[in-house]
Amino acid sequence: MKPEPARTMAAANAPLRDHYATVRARSLQLIAGLTAEDCMVQSMSDASPLKWHLAHTSWFFETFVLAPLRGYRCFNPAYRMLFNSYYVGVGERHARPARGVLSRPDLAQVLAYRQHVDDALDTVLQGALAADATALIELGLQHEQQHQELMLTDLKHHFWCNPLHPAYRDSTGLSAPPAIGAQWLRHAGGNTEIGHAGPAFAFDNETPRHPVTLAPYELANRLVTNAEYAVFIADGGYRQPTLWLSDGWDCRQREGWQAPLYWLDAAGKRAFTLYGDQPLHPTAPVSHISYYEADAYARWAGARLPTEAEWEQAADTSSTAPDGTPSLAPQPATGEGLTQLFGTLWQWTGSAYLPYPGYRPLPGAVGEYNGKFMINQMVLRGSACSTPPGHARASYRNFFPPAARWQFSGIRLARDVG
Amino acid sequence: MKPEPARTMAAANAPLRDHYATVRARSLQLIAGLTAEDCMVQSMSDASPLKWHLAHTSWFFETFVLAPLRGYRCFNPAYRMLFNSYYVGVGERHARPARGVLSRPDLAQVLAYRQHVDDALDTVLQGALAADATALIELGLQHEQQHQELMLTDLKHHFWCNPLHPAYRDSTGLSAPPAIGAQWLRHAGGNTEIGHAGPAFAFDNETPRHPVTLAPYELANRLVTNAEYAVFIADGGYRQPTLWLSDGWDCRQREGWQAPLYWLDAAGKRAFTLYGDQPLHPTAPVSHISYYEADAYARWAGARLPTEAEWEQAADTSSTAPDGTPSLAPQPATGEGLTQLFGTLWQWTGSAYLPYPGYRPLPGAVGEYNGKFMINQMVLRGSACSTPPGHARASYRNFFPPAARWQFSGIRLARDVG
Amino acid sequence: MKPEPARTMAAANAPLRDHYATVRARSLQLIAGLTAEDCMVQSMSDASPLKWHLAHTSWFFETFVLAPLRGYRCFNPAYRMLFNSYYVGVGERHARPARGVLSRPDLAQVLAYRQHVDDALDTVLQGALAADATALIELGLQHEQQHQELMLTDLKHHFWCNPLHPAYRDSTGLSAPPAIGAQWLRHAGGNTEIGHAGPAFAFDNETPRHPVTLAPYELANRLVTNAEYAVFIADGGYRQPTLWLSDGWDCRQREGWQAPLYWLDAAGKRAFTLYGDQPLHPTAPVSHISYYEADAYARWAGARLPTEAEWEQAADTSSTAPDGTPSLAPQPATGEGLTQLFGTLWQWTGSAYLPYPGYRPLPGAVGEYNGKFMINQMVLRGSACSTPPGHARASYRNFFPPAARWQFSGIRLARDVG
Amino acid sequence: MKPEPARTMAAANAPLRDHYATVRARSLQLIAGLTAEDCMVQSMSDASPLKWHLAHTSWFFETFVLAPLRGYRCFNPAYRMLFNSYYVGVGERHARPARGVLSRPDLAQVLAYRQHVDDALDTVLQGALAADATALIELGLQHEQQHQELMLTDLKHHFWCNPLHPAYRDSTGLSAPPAIGAQWLRHAGGNTEIGHAGPAFAFDNETPRHPVTLAPYELANRLVTNAEYAVFIADGGYRQPTLWLSDGWDCRQREGWQAPLYWLDAAGKRAFTLYGDQPLHPTAPVSHISYYEADAYARWAGARLPTEAEWEQAADTSSTAPDGTPSLAPQPATGEGLTQLFGTLWQWTGSAYLPYPGYRPLPGAVGEYNGKFMINQMVLRGSACSTPPGHARASYRNFFPPAARWQFSGIRLARDVG
Repeated sequence: MKPEPARTMAAANAPLRDHYATVRARSLQLIAGLTAEDCMVQSMSDASPLKWHLAHTSWFFETFVLAPLRGYRCFNPAYRMLFNSYYVGVGERHARPARGVLSRPDLAQVLAYRQHVDDALDTVLQGALAADATALIELGLQHEQQHQELMLTDLKHHFWCNPLHPAYRDSTGLSAPPAIGAQWLRHAGGNTEIGHAGPAFAFDNETPRHPVTLAPYELANRLVTNAEYAVFIADGGYRQPTLWLSDGWDCRQREGWQAPLYWLDAAGKRAFTLYGDQPLHPTAPVSHISYYEADAYARWAGARLPTEAEWEQAADTSSTAPDGTPSLAPQPATGEGLTQLFGTLWQWTGSAYLPYPGYRPLPGAVGEYNGKFMINQMVLRGSACSTPPGHARASYRNFFPPAARWQFSGIRLARDVG
Repeated sequence: MKPEPARTMAAANAPLRDHYATVRARSLQLIAGLTAEDCMVQSMSDASPLKWHLAHTSWFFETFVLAPLRGYRCFNPAYRMLFNSYYVGVGERHARPARGVLSRPDLAQVLAYRQHVDDALDTVLQGALAADATALIELGLQHEQQHQELMLTDLKHHFWCNPLHPAYRDSTGLSAPPAIGAQWLRHAGGNTEIGHAGPAFAFDNETPRHPVTLAPYELANRLVTNAEYAVFIADGGYRQPTLWLSDGWDCRQREGWQAPLYWLDAAGKRAFTLYGDQPLHPTAPVSHISYYEADAYARWAGARLPTEAEWEQAADTSSTAPDGTPSLAPQPATGEGLTQLFGTLWQWTGSAYLPYPGYRPLPGAVGEYNGKFMINQMVLRGSACSTPPGHARASYRNFFPPAARWQFSGIRLARDVG
Repeated sequence: MKPEPARTMAAANAPLRDHYATVRARSLQLIAGLTAEDCMVQSMSDASPLKWHLAHTSWFFETFVLAPLRGYRCFNPAYRMLFNSYYVGVGERHARPARGVLSRPDLAQVLAYRQHVDDALDTVLQGALAADATALIELGLQHEQQHQELMLTDLKHHFWCNPLHPAYRDSTGLSAPPAIGAQWLRHAGGNTEIGHAGPAFAFDNETPRHPVTLAPYELANRLVTNAEYAVFIADGGYRQPTLWLSDGWDCRQREGWQAPLYWLDAAGKRAFTLYGDQPLHPTAPVSHISYYEADAYARWAGARLPTEAEWEQAADTSSTAPDGTPSLAPQPATGEGLTQLFGTLWQWTGSAYLPYPGYRPLPGAVGEYNGKFMINQMVLRGSACSTPPGHARASYRNFFPPAARWQFSGIRLARDVG
Repeated sequence: MKPEPARTMAAANAPLRDHYATVRARSLQLIAGLTAEDCMVQSMSDASPLKWHLAHTSWFFETFVLAPLRGYRCFNPAYRMLFNSYYVGVGERHARPARGVLSRPDLAQVLAYRQHVDDALDTVLQGALAADATALIELGLQHEQQHQELMLTDLKHHFWCNPLHPAYRDSTGLSAPPAIGAQWLRHAGGNTEIGHAGPAFAFDNETPRHPVTLAPYELANRLVTNAEYAVFIADGGYRQPTLWLSDGWDCRQREGWQAPLYWLDAAGKRAFTLYGDQPLHPTAPVSHISYYEADAYARWAGARLPTEAEWEQAADTSSTAPDGTPSLAPQPATGEGLTQLFGTLWQWTGSAYLPYPGYRPLPGAVGEYNGKFMINQMVLRGSACSTPPGHARASYRNFFPPAARWQFSGIRLARDVG
């Protein structure tokens, strides 16, 4: 008798079905209050229109979960190309810098597409599921959460490029608590392991768990603040090439950087936020800085950035819950020990984004998810105020090119011991 | 007693008031059937969103007619910068390539802005008007007509860049009449005059009327057809550098041109139009070609392009009414004599866009309207199927850089005599 | 009896043989005092190494005169491609921006190549010559004279890009005479003719002579001086966009222009010259300016640039001999009437470089000499201190893109009358 | 009694003095047979003229060793800027892409500059030396050896860009031995150390020695051959994006890569070498490939690139002597065990060029030597046929951006065990 592939029973899918509903609903909540026009802006090649994010996340489920199923009726065959991001294994793609020209399909049609996919997925989730289908649905939800963060990240840039500096959300009632002082926290290093293991979900780039050897090191208990960063600027941080990596200085010159991306003045008095132009809290962490700036700041401060192994070792015993009040702007640090690990800002590490020893990408076209980007990027750890709830873990590897500034990134300092 | 500036009586303004209402209403008719999203697309730096056109044409009236008036309440002070196209005399401008990021103001607000301007203008038009105000309002209407043509021109490009190739209008009932054969029509040349004179409206670049001396010449009775152009392509027209200007060949290589802009195949069977993808009529004139292509075609055909003086002399005795049925696609030629002068396609001339002898730009910031663009462009004459009714005259000087292809441009051949 | 093509007798070639010897020798005189390394510099794509000029001018004779002759032994077949400038009718070309990488052939080999060509040409010139061969040899000599001017023009740029600012020639004994004041000289305009006619040599672009009609106009009796240009700068000439053409202002912004190309300070105290860094004579004409700058200066001065027809009509009765002492730097004006027409600086006109009515390029690959560049360039008239003796005439049409500054260009003002 | 800084006695300097003489002489040997013109070519921004290398290596000694000494007479103050490569701590620099315009100083002057520096250094070496001076001289010699390799690397590119493909050296007598087959050699991994320790010279980027933990792995016993790489090409290696990193594929598309840099055909029959165009030995290692190509090849072969720690662990017990006959072209592998570690081709690793844990750059401006380049580059290990004798060690870290191909780079495969 031929063995059957492992299948969950329909009843066992209930938690996944709930998770699906919750995650998908949140994407729609994110566009509440926005116009169809707002959802179509593409302010640069790196940032996509919100409408595109809504469509592409549906495309992911359609392409990898639904399309292989017998009897699935494709919503619109043109979407296969139109909303493919970068999967060459799936076929042609609409050019990334031209995502903003897609007035058609309009937002209403994209929402209908989402509903179509949700309906089909719901039918699937009411039946028995093969293990790989379950895995792909789970991957699709994690993928959608990543795009939820990108929606906020990109929208901030889209609105920033509009001289009117529209506010995404109302800032009424926002307040910043007094912040804690900076301290060095010592870690022993030694032989340890990093990377994900176990049955819970993780992206392929977090695996396999593997041994590393670390020298003793110290990490700052909180992120670098706006006030601290303003001192760096006032001290000539953006005028002194010896503080910078060579490529970083070229970039600073070419781009004319004089302060973090969204600052409205070099003193850090005001900045653009998802709440519109706002006063900048001196004790809130400096945000939207590139690796080059983080690295230059650390050198100026007589410190360095942590490696991802150091960061993960230190974080491994911490909760992944954010410290403070939920907000779409990073908040000052409070509390004891290693604060602001999650829910505030992604933290640049000094580690290049490369495969872990023994890394294997997923089979098939989803294998393009992570592996092919493992060059010319640096790892960021933690999570940010823009990260969806439940989407953080100590082994999570985020990554951006060293010049990127539009993501919610900040600085945690490290230094050698002895 | 101090002399009063000449003023029209309110009653005398009635024709202008009608003209104002008619022209302004037509801009709104152009967006009928389009979504707010459609009106926000910017597919390249040269082309602007339709919403921007709607706002900018209102900005023109507000800035040059209304703002100087005591008591005028500005709709939104930010618009002064946001919808300024290129008038440095007025102040800062929003960057042209970033017009597509302006989800705010949304279309509804832009329409409210139009209404606000219309209301204020109507009040003005009900009073007595100084001569310069009348002239500025007339200029504003001609300006708006130019932007109406750009709305169609730009929309065609916007929709072309969407792989779905949306149709702007329904093609039902479109049909192409049989076309006439090509003939050379002889013109005597000699001492003549070109340029505008008289009280009717003309742009400053059409003046002053001045003498020119022309050798005898011949003009083709109609524009070059798609079928004729397909022969040029089949004969290696895009592969033979000796047919091209040096800059033209560089451009063809860099851009990879192999056919006119909107052709879907090199044989000219199908093309993208404002009616969506359509069969191409062999006898319809070839359209959306650059100066470089027009010049190469003419060289291949043993002919040349007419000068603007030749064109104007030949056209001076013709009606400015289009030959055929109104359509948003250029139609085949019919009739006797010099056909397709107006209402089909703009016709490249071999003349550089430079000031006429004795040219004086308008005083003040509106002096930037034409004069500062008199370099690196070639003159086109006539008018196109995209040109608003009533906006054509023999002295009209349109102009584009030699590499531009998105405008409704075609080829009329000329040759020397004897 | 079959008619023979017209042929000169060998004795009749003596003047051409002398001319050949004189012109060819002068190219070598130009590199006296330079090293082989100096002759290899290519400081930008627009400027070629002097060694390349020496080889290319020989290539011209070899390709168009010698190669078609039975029995001619090619010096090195690889040179056909290596030293072809832009003649696609001849075949492939070495990329223009990479001319500076050609260490091989070395200078000695290029000089041997010249000798080889000279020897073969001399044999040809000692026999009977068909009329077209005579014409091609004459063309080759005029071509070489153009490259002699380019050698000085390019060398100045090459040395300018070396921070040591080497001097090409010793400035001992250079002195500037006191200059004359500026005056407007009136010209009647009317029906006239421009262009070359008659048996003497002219480039195809100077023909045919043809009628033009001119309104009365005035020309400045001399070129704009350094002192006058410094006033324009001090008055904000480079900071006021309304003085500039739109493309010109973009160019000024992009390139960061604040003064003419070789000025060492914005006040015009010192400049780089072929004599090294030197004090700038206030009364000497301002040089190395683009069309954009010339046009902006003229607008600021309440004047304009002359058309090429105006310039030629005014110059038609003048001698083509330079006014002053031969020098490699433009000298102040002296004398009466229209001065500095020749031998000082090329003078921008407001005319685009386009074919004259009835223009026909030469047959064959030499037809690429001029015609294919008739777009995106403006005409300059006269000649410069860098122009070889005997290479000036009133009908001569020089041309450069409006942004070019490395050529010896200056400003003569014109204005309308009445 | 005040303690004296440690100083060597003059006699103790004899070995350093010999080393100095030997290394400096070798630079001159490298230009034997080249013209001054050859030494001035700069074919791209990344590659410098040989004359510049000769001057810059002298500048290094002058700036860091001689200039601080009382009484040293600077050869030419302008050289401080002219031949500074990238040391912003030293001051301004001549722009890198413009090194090829420096006809002055000519080669003779640069050789005189070398002599001047050698004379002054020799005087210094005959006296007592402080320890830091000794270290700087040793650094200067290692620096000069690096530039010796660059001279060959750059010259190959310079000559490649000349369509004549000149030969640098005579290939008479070159022959390739039969090559060995490919084998996997197993390494145990485990806890080990990498990095330099001890008194012998090493660059700062090789330190400090530190523990690493490695899983078991296998390395190929020799480099990938031309024949093997030709199979990859024939199998569509350059047409299949799923084999490539995303940035790599973009690069391949943009640059039009279809084979290794110097191959003359896609089948690998012939290639350009320092001996001119030559037949390519199928068994010789494939060379001049980018990281992107190495990575794609490895993926196609079901393998991966080694990490630098794996490479160094495996090499740590090997001799640094090259395997085969000295040659300026990489030779086929011979022998047992891990062959071609040194003296054949640099070998891409999968490790990013980042600081070792505890890394400290040298103090002062020489601290810019390595540290500021630690971003966007990948490490290569071993040494090449272009590397000077005596300049190889197991801990040596070479580095290039992943798109670079002009260096002598090859592929050694690795794979996981179990």
